[in-house]
Amino acid sequence: MTTSAPASPGSPALVPSPRIRTSPFYPATLAAGANRFTVYNRMLMPVSYGDPAAEYRRLIETAALWDVACERQVEVAGPDAGRLVQYLTARDLGSLEVGEARYVAMCNHDGVLLNDPVLLRLSDRYWFSLADADMLLWVEAVAGERGFDARVCEPDVSPLAIQGPRGMDVAAALFGEGIRELARFHLVETDYEAIPVVVCRSGWSRQGGVEVFLRDGSGGPALWEAAMGAGQPYGIGPGAPNPVERVESGLLSFGGDTTPGSNPFEANMARYVDLDAPVDYIGKAALRRIATEGPRRLLVGLFLEAGISDTASLETRVPVWRDGEAVGTMSAAVHSPRLGRTIAIAQIERAVVEAGAPLEVDGRSGRVAATITGLPFI
Amino acid sequence: MTTSAPASPGSPALVPSPRIRTSPFYPATLAAGANRFTVYNRMLMPVSYGDPAAEYRRLIETAALWDVACERQVEVAGPDAGRLVQYLTARDLGSLEVGEARYVAMCNHDGVLLNDPVLLRLSDRYWFSLADADMLLWVEAVAGERGFDARVCEPDVSPLAIQGPRGMDVAAALFGEGIRELARFHLVETDYEAIPVVVCRSGWSRQGGVEVFLRDGSGGPALWEAAMGAGQPYGIGPGAPNPVERVESGLLSFGGDTTPGSNPFEANMARYVDLDAPVDYIGKAALRRIATEGPRRLLVGLFLEAGISDTASLETRVPVWRDGEAVGTMSAAVHSPRLGRTIAIAQIERAVVEAGAPLEVDGRSGRVAATITGLPFI
Repeated sequence: MTTSAPASPGSPALVPSPRIRTSPFYPATLAAGANRFTVYNRMLMPVSYGDPAAEYRRLIETAALWDVACERQVEVAGPDAGRLVQYLTARDLGSLEVGEARYVAMCNHDGVLLNDPVLLRLSDRYWFSLADADMLLWVEAVAGERGFDARVCEPDVSPLAIQGPRGMDVAAALFGEGIRELARFHLVETDYEAIPVVVCRSGWSRQGGVEVFLRDGSGGPALWEAAMGAGQPYGIGPGAPNPVERVESGLLSFGGDTTPGSNPFEANMARYVDLDAPVDYIGKAALRRIATEGPRRLLVGLFLEAGISDTASLETRVPVWRDGEAVGTMSAAVHSPRLGRTIAIAQIERAVVEAGAPLEVDGRSGRVAATITGLPFI
Repeated sequence: MTTSAPASPGSPALVPSPRIRTSPFYPATLAAGANRFTVYNRMLMPVSYGDPAAEYRRLIETAALWDVACERQVEVAGPDAGRLVQYLTARDLGSLEVGEARYVAMCNHDGVLLNDPVLLRLSDRYWFSLADADMLLWVEAVAGERGFDARVCEPDVSPLAIQGPRGMDVAAALFGEGIRELARFHLVETDYEAIPVVVCRSGWSRQGGVEVFLRDGSGGPALWEAAMGAGQPYGIGPGAPNPVERVESGLLSFGGDTTPGSNPFEANMARYVDLDAPVDYIGKAALRRIATEGPRRLLVGLFLEAGISDTASLETRVPVWRDGEAVGTMSAAVHSPRLGRTIAIAQIERAVVEAGAPLEVDGRSGRVAATITGLPFI
C-alpha cells in the first residue's frame, strides 16, 4: 500500500475543477440542501443533506431520491456487442434477454476484480452501469485490440434512484401503474413527458424501488422535480447511497471494501462467477485456479464491541488484528438502528475466518473487540 | 456533454472515503496548513495552503514543495516492456535511453488522447507518470490482450516536486552537488538517507527544479521534512501545481482543458506525435488521417478584457462565443501578475482561430471580450 491516513481527516474543502464533473441533477441537489459530497467517477455525488438520521429513516420507511448520475455507463453497441460484453463479464450471459439486467463481475486476465457493475440489456445496446473506475478505458482497449465490431462510448445517461418501500408507488405515479409489473432486475425503455429514460427495478439498497436512467442530461431538473412531486404523498425526500443501510444489507463498495488486487471471491461475489459455463471471458482460467486453491481472503461482517463514536467509522480502511498480527482490513463501521449494534464490513484472511478467532480493530482510542459474522446483517 | 454546473459552485465539503486515497505526504501537508484539496487519480491532492499570492511568489522567486503523489505511476517491466511502452505511445521512443524521460501522448485506436504522461525509463523498468485517469486499466488490457510478456502494476511510488528558480539548490542540498548536472528530462536512481528515490529534472511548471519519486511510502514524512529543511536557506515553502503559472506557461491540464474526445492536435501536443517514424503504436493510422484533414479545434490562449473577479475563473469549462455561436470552451482564467492581464486557456474551432475573429466568453455578469493568442503566454 502506498497510502496512509490519519484516523479522522475531517471534511476537506474541495476546489471545483473542470476535471470534476457535475451531474444534471446537481443544481437541484444543492437547492434541496446537499452539503457533503464525494467524487465518484470524476463526478460530484451528494452524500448527505445534513440530517443522516432522517435520510436513513426515509430510505427504510418511505422513499428517498438519490442523484447517482456518477454511476456512469459504458455503452456497447454494434454487430459484436453481445460477444464483447460476454468476453468482459465473468458470468454466463446466455440467458440475458432484452429488458433484463444482471449484477456482474468484470475481471482482468489475472482474475482481479476491476468493477462490479449492473449490466443492462436494452433493445439495441448494452450498458455497464459502473462503480468507481474508468472502465471505458478497459472496454475500449479490449474492443480495439481484439477487433470486435462494436461501438463503445460513455453516453449522456444519468441514473436517478428512487429507493425505499414506497419507491414503486412513486415510480407508478411517474410512469404509470404498469411499472409495478417490472420484476427485479428488469427494465423498460420509456419516457416521462418527452424526457427519454430507462426504468430498471434495481438500486444500491435492499429497500426496493427503481433506478431511472435519464437519457438526456438537459431533462435533469425537470425529472428531479417530477420525482419529488410524485413522491410527496409517499414521504419522499432527498437522500444518497446510504452507508448504514448498505452495510446492514451487505452491499459491496468496490474500491472501498476491496483492497487493490482483490478477486471476486474476496469480494463476496462467488455466486456471480460462472466457471463451468461454455462461455469465454477475460480471467476465466485465473478464476478457476483461484477457486481451486481457495481465495486468500473473504469479505465478512463484523460485530464491534464499541459505540460508533469509538470506531474509525467510514473514512479509511483500518487494520484488523488477531493476537497483534494484521489479518485484514475493515472498511466501514456504522451504528445499525435496526440491530442496535455497531457493525462493519471487513476483508479478512480466509484461514482466520474459518478458525473464528477473536479479533480486534483500530478504534479512536485503542483497540476494539470484533466478532466475524456473515453478510448481509439483515 | 452530460454535465452542467452553476458558474460558481463554491468549495463543497468532501466526505473522506476509503475509495479516495491519501498520499504519504498527507499528514505533513495538513501540518503545513493545506486547506483546499482536489481529487486526482482517486487521491487527495492539496491545491492551496491559504495564501495563493504567496504560493505563486515562492514558485516564481524561490522554491515550492508540492505533494504530487497523485501523479500515479503505471509501471511496465519484463522482456517485452520496451515494445509494449512504444505500442502505447504516439512518439518515437527509439532514442529514449535509460536515465531519460519524455513527455508523451497516449491515444486510443481512434486517435483520442487518453493521457499526457511523462514517461521515465529506469534501469529495469518504465514508468508512465500520469495525469488524471485510470490508465492502469488501459495498459493492462492492451498487455493482456496482445500477449506481451510484461509485468504491469501501479507501484508504491509517490512524486514530491521541488519547483522554482532555487529548486536545484534545494535538490543539491538534499542529494549532493552532482544533481546539478542532470539535464532537463534526465533522471537518476538514488536515495536520501536510505529512502529510495528517483530524481528527475521535470515538473508541471516552467520555473525549474526536480520531481523526487519516492519509492517507499513509509519514507514520506521524513522526505517531506528533509526537503523543507534543506530548502529553508532558499526560501522554500509549501505549494501545489499552480493554476496561474501553468496558464502563463501554457501547460496542459488533461481532462480540464481538453474536452472528451480530443486528439493530441487539439491539445497543443502536435510536436509530440511522430507520424512518420518507423514505429507502430495505437492510433497511428487515425492520427495520420486527422493530421491530413487538419484537427477540428486548437488549444490557444485568450486575453480577456475583464478583471479576474468578472470571469468564471477555474471552476468549470464555459462556452466561447463568436457572434452568438458557441465555438469552443474556456477552461481556466487567471490574473497574471507578470503580464498584468487576465489570461485564459481555451479550445476553439480551428477555422475560428485561423480567422482571428473577435470572441466573447461567459463571465459572472455578462459576456466578456476575448482575443486569441498563442501558448505559452510567457
